[in-house]
Amino acid sequence: MSGLPAKVNLSEKLALFSEHWSPKIVAEFNGHDIFVVKVKGEFVWHSHAETDDFFLCLSGQVTIQLREGDVLLNPGELFVVPKGVEHCPMAAEEACLLLIEPEGTPNTGNEATATAKIRI
Amino acid sequence: MSGLPAKVNLSEKLALFSEHWSPKIVAEFNGHDIFVVKVKGEFVWHSHAETDDFFLCLSGQVTIQLREGDVLLNPGELFVVPKGVEHCPMAAEEACLLLIEPEGTPNTGNEATATAKIRI
Repeated sequence: MSGLPAKVNLSEKLALFSEHWSPKIVAEFNGHDIFVVKVKGEFVWHSHAETDDFFLCLSGQVTIQLREGDVLLNPGELFVVPKGVEHCPMAAEEACLLLIEPEGTPNTGNEATATAKIRI
Repeated sequence: MSGLPAKVNLSEKLALFSEHWSPKIVAEFNGHDIFVVKVKGEFVWHSHAETDDFFLCLSGQVTIQLREGDVLLNPGELFVVPKGVEHCPMAAEEACLLLIEPEGTPNTGNEATATAKIRI
């Protein structure tokens, strides 16, 4: 498959790291990065002025806290936070997610506090 | 959750229809539609001049045939066909996929032969 990207096995990628709240790029799509991430505990309240925020729960349970109320995601459930809407992901136990964001988007909505994203 | 989209349970959406090769819109993200689709048999060889093509296998097995060779996707595996690259999905038995395409993209790469996409 010279010149073409490889297929991505999400479980294999998730087995490569253990840290939480540190999204890893696994593929690219139309100027967006596709990530897997492990989460546990509470993230920070933030919003993205220029992009929607895509969450697909792969394992565990994650709550997307919104000012209007909580959205609980089980495996096989997805939620799109519209751009500009404040949210704060939270997981009592470890959960794994697929995320999609435009290339270069700071995960906290703020360059100064964002986590560097690496390709795995 | 007035004004916000609802979460999407992919299995529940897939239970709403039975036809093959007829993607159903389940969410929107940054000018893209997010689909679930059931596939069985062989699609048509095509390419998209203006967009990458995102495939995530949810159940079953699907082969993304490429001129350079085949990519076999099992559940939890994804593949992005770069824009302009000819491909032809094929599944010996029924498989279910998550797809992402820019709004209005014809699934066959050609308006005249494309399947109408409805929101479920």
